[in-house]
Amino acid sequence: MSSVDRYVAIIGASRCDEKIERIAFEVGKLIAEKKAILVCGGLGGVMEAACRGAKAAGGLTVGILPTGKKTDANPYVDIAIPTGMGEARNALVVKAADAIIAISGEFGTLSEIGLALKMGKPVVGLETWELSKEGKVSGAIVVAKTPFEAVERIFLP
Amino acid sequence: MSSVDRYVAIIGASRCDEKIERIAFEVGKLIAEKKAILVCGGLGGVMEAACRGAKAAGGLTVGILPTGKKTDANPYVDIAIPTGMGEARNALVVKAADAIIAISGEFGTLSEIGLALKMGKPVVGLETWELSKEGKVSGAIVVAKTPFEAVERIFLP
Amino acid sequence: MSSVDRYVAIIGASRCDEKIERIAFEVGKLIAEKKAILVCGGLGGVMEAACRGAKAAGGLTVGILPTGKKTDANPYVDIAIPTGMGEARNALVVKAADAIIAISGEFGTLSEIGLALKMGKPVVGLETWELSKEGKVSGAIVVAKTPFEAVERIFLP
Amino acid sequence: MSSVDRYVAIIGASRCDEKIERIAFEVGKLIAEKKAILVCGGLGGVMEAACRGAKAAGGLTVGILPTGKKTDANPYVDIAIPTGMGEARNALVVKAADAIIAISGEFGTLSEIGLALKMGKPVVGLETWELSKEGKVSGAIVVAKTPFEAVERIFLP
Repeated sequence: MSSVDRYVAIIGASRCDEKIERIAFEVGKLIAEKKAILVCGGLGGVMEAACRGAKAAGGLTVGILPTGKKTDANPYVDIAIPTGMGEARNALVVKAADAIIAISGEFGTLSEIGLALKMGKPVVGLETWELSKEGKVSGAIVVAKTPFEAVERIFLP
Repeated sequence: MSSVDRYVAIIGASRCDEKIERIAFEVGKLIAEKKAILVCGGLGGVMEAACRGAKAAGGLTVGILPTGKKTDANPYVDIAIPTGMGEARNALVVKAADAIIAISGEFGTLSEIGLALKMGKPVVGLETWELSKEGKVSGAIVVAKTPFEAVERIFLP
Repeated sequence: MSSVDRYVAIIGASRCDEKIERIAFEVGKLIAEKKAILVCGGLGGVMEAACRGAKAAGGLTVGILPTGKKTDANPYVDIAIPTGMGEARNALVVKAADAIIAISGEFGTLSEIGLALKMGKPVVGLETWELSKEGKVSGAIVVAKTPFEAVERIFLP
Repeated sequence: MSSVDRYVAIIGASRCDEKIERIAFEVGKLIAEKKAILVCGGLGGVMEAACRGAKAAGGLTVGILPTGKKTDANPYVDIAIPTGMGEARNALVVKAADAIIAISGEFGTLSEIGLALKMGKPVVGLETWELSKEGKVSGAIVVAKTPFEAVERIFLP
């Protein structure tokens, strides 16, 4: 492994609408242009769109699957890691990444945001969960407005 | 395993103030009085207070630890399951439970809330995370005001 | 958790003949009489017979399941931990135990023997795998001839 | 992921003598020449020598680490997956592979052999564990005499 390799996880739901798909594609493309390795959960929706974007820019994609079958990976995953561990694989997606970009997403995405923050890793969000406690908004997720902004935030020194 | 056994997970931070500790103790006690088995992450803070409460009412407590050492369990854990899996053990705490009560908590708790909702399990919250998306508050976590209310909600038919 | 609690894992196949079942029952019973907690994979065959033996002596049994459903546990499991992690749960069964008794068994049992030895835990075998390398028999598995001998070996100081 | 991708795991100890290192290097090289992706536990010894061999032939290498730190991977790992799961990661190494080649090895290797056979995957061995039960040698591990033979066995139709 080159010591300059950077792994970025893109997390989001396995089903999403076209707008979110376009955002995920763009984020994946930008990450690949930065020469980072894209890590994801390997399935459809946001994960597939992001991998498709990364491949459009010649990037490398890793899919860490909840199931035990490599063939469950979307067609844009280069390296499929079937875990057979169900939801427990969410921790592995996050563990493999240096930084996380959350795009929309449901409860699985929420769990990965929590795990990433627990591990002290930067999380940038695009149209994703907003957190508050005792009525006070949490600043733990860095909010980005565009794919470009999201990726810039991740690569800040 | 008796088919009537019910497992309730109490999730929360490994450090907490006295007020949260009292709440956790009370919830643990009420769960034991309902004859449910208390599952938790096995460490200090909310987990220890809840186990202490359950033991005060003669209950049974299970601690699923992130480390590989049983001796890391708090002294009120009856059955310690050391996993050596780090944060990935959060999925196991939630998987083992029929219902979850979140008490205050930090990012680890947030991940467990996400995992539980993803698995379709009821989550009741006491002074814990509030979720919203696109400015709209999520009703996924059932908000309780008191330990009594939290436990009642879990045992609704 | 009482500091004197001792956890013993009984490992073996989920299907077995009557002779092996009788051995597993006896080992489970003897472990419970020693006041140790019995840990196993929670399924049928050797695991069920061992749990049945432990319950006959008033012991406590823990089943760490490969599936995500508590109801997959055999009826003699007191505490069911459904992991949904498939074969990766084998590491958890072994991790939870201070010592391991392998009874007959197939490839899953072999993997648990390997994991236990890797973790430096004592493994006693009854009619189980024999290991050798470069034609030289390994002494890593302590061979016992009877359930009584197997349990005595585990509880040697 | 190309549907023709084949993942082969090379398993063995993190420390080994020069002879075993040469064998591992050769097996890694041959696997890469077959255009298969090499999966391993990412550490030193057999794993490092095999990765070095694969890179010498322009192959792609994946290291699934027991620790949570990518930097624990040997320098010939292209894609490092830090799991933080300790020995439980052995199941992931095996799960990710279509076939397994065991080279010498200690107890961790033994556990991976057991897990692979349990999952019904072909296991070829080079100077590794020999298994027997009730005095009868098991044919579960296909014995190879040379790296060339080991790799040929894996790619038999």
